[in-house]
Amino acid sequence: MSNSIKIFSPATVANVACGFDILGFALDHPGDEIQVSLKDSPGITVLNQTKDTVFPADVNKNTAVVSLQAYLSHMGSEQGFEITFTKKIKPGSGIGSSSASAAASVFAANELLGNPINKENLVQFAMQGEKAACGVAHADNVAPALLGGFVLVRSYDPLDIISIPYPEELYCTIIHPQIEVKTEDARKILRQGISLKDAVKQWGNVGGLIAGLMKGDYALIGRSLEDAIIEPIRSILIPGYDAVKEAALEAGALGCCISGSGPSMFALSRSLEEATQIAAAMKKAFTHYEIDNIDYVSKVNSQGPKVI
Amino acid sequence: MSNSIKIFSPATVANVACGFDILGFALDHPGDEIQVSLKDSPGITVLNQTKDTVFPADVNKNTAVVSLQAYLSHMGSEQGFEITFTKKIKPGSGIGSSSASAAASVFAANELLGNPINKENLVQFAMQGEKAACGVAHADNVAPALLGGFVLVRSYDPLDIISIPYPEELYCTIIHPQIEVKTEDARKILRQGISLKDAVKQWGNVGGLIAGLMKGDYALIGRSLEDAIIEPIRSILIPGYDAVKEAALEAGALGCCISGSGPSMFALSRSLEEATQIAAAMKKAFTHYEIDNIDYVSKVNSQGPKVI
Repeated sequence: MSNSIKIFSPATVANVACGFDILGFALDHPGDEIQVSLKDSPGITVLNQTKDTVFPADVNKNTAVVSLQAYLSHMGSEQGFEITFTKKIKPGSGIGSSSASAAASVFAANELLGNPINKENLVQFAMQGEKAACGVAHADNVAPALLGGFVLVRSYDPLDIISIPYPEELYCTIIHPQIEVKTEDARKILRQGISLKDAVKQWGNVGGLIAGLMKGDYALIGRSLEDAIIEPIRSILIPGYDAVKEAALEAGALGCCISGSGPSMFALSRSLEEATQIAAAMKKAFTHYEIDNIDYVSKVNSQGPKVI
Repeated sequence: MSNSIKIFSPATVANVACGFDILGFALDHPGDEIQVSLKDSPGITVLNQTKDTVFPADVNKNTAVVSLQAYLSHMGSEQGFEITFTKKIKPGSGIGSSSASAAASVFAANELLGNPINKENLVQFAMQGEKAACGVAHADNVAPALLGGFVLVRSYDPLDIISIPYPEELYCTIIHPQIEVKTEDARKILRQGISLKDAVKQWGNVGGLIAGLMKGDYALIGRSLEDAIIEPIRSILIPGYDAVKEAALEAGALGCCISGSGPSMFALSRSLEEATQIAAAMKKAFTHYEIDNIDYVSKVNSQGPKVI
């Protein structure tokens, strides 16, 4: 067994339009790089090699540390670890920055200890990191971050994680407008009561999206990427949202919506070429609103974290 | 072209626990038998060969007539038809009695006219029959009645009907307690507002059920047959509901819930033998409540209406 390991951990898109709190997928790019090493003494030490990113001073707010503590507590282990972060996913971007850290630390520690626990069962520990980060132990980022591909969280109690087959050729465009939307705030503005009529629309689309992914039916995937409940509220926090979405669809996107709690937006498409064209169209639409933004173009990631 | 045709039209289970208004499947048994003949003069004549079943005196309330009128109006046809019913699905049972009639009449007329319209596109006409019967043009009975198998109604506007692959060996037990629950009343007692929390549970289960059916994962199908929203309210209308459901699950059912708007209950299982045992267990549980009931055991129907 090695004493040190370097991990790539993927960014993720949660909610995926209709699947609030239950659906997410992973990206090949961007992703965090995290070096995890066994220590001779107990405790978790954190080192930050990321430029321009300040880590929480309180390690109990660091998702990687909280997740790893949950894992070690479950294992009854007092092993010490040193974690060195080179984060490439910006915190607060809405593409699973905290989840990538949480997934990486438990994946790496589990690797270093000889993989006593399978990846599906690591999700519960990474969720504890999410809870520390945003107050809710949601799994729709950490589950795809750990398992890769599209993941359905059928149930939280008991936790029931289902990998969803999807077409080999599926690409994602991410545009991250440089505005701040805190996950906690994005949750607060949601209505806790919704109409049965809107809910019926939503679960029709959830069914359609799962069927579309599994059938490899791109048109059905596109038609199902609708959100009757969350998008109308959260999109208000993103200036220019409607115009940028329209630009993505005009450029050939199957669908476009808010990634997680935002502010990033995602669009799905059939090829790298299309995804690149969609990125250009979305960026151009944002210029009218004078909002700086960063774009990523990536294939859907099939593997989750990997040793690099 | 023949001038007369006899059709078997299947009973259907709508909602399927988590899929209120968006999901249904068809049964091999029971089903209605309907003879449809071309007439020399315009208009639709209805003959009833069913014992113990009174048809609406107003033919504009007869789902088969309303559906057929909608079909003929779309076709711009003044062809006359005679429809002779031998209904085996009891009206008000909750297993798509009105839908079987609606599906049969448009399917038969379309056959007699040389199939100018494909089966998917007949759904819109059969829905008009549903509207006449219960006030709402829902499609989760008529779509599986016409297409067979499991059918997802992803969207009503525009209408988007998706056939869902399912495991070859899938059986259904129906218990029809002899109490009256009107579809219209069963809709009235539903709350028009629901909690986001319950909705998240529901769409997690919709995703799980579609994935379970398409993967042929019986355990996942079973875990997903949960209804957080409709069952708690409608089950109150069925005396003994909880005990009968428990009996079904103890006898090996993958899941058990209300069929459509009730009062029938359905349970899914892996074999005809299991489905038969589940029927016996459910009937036994109902005896404690002194409610007469009728049971049906059937494979899931793959074909929809057929010429007999």
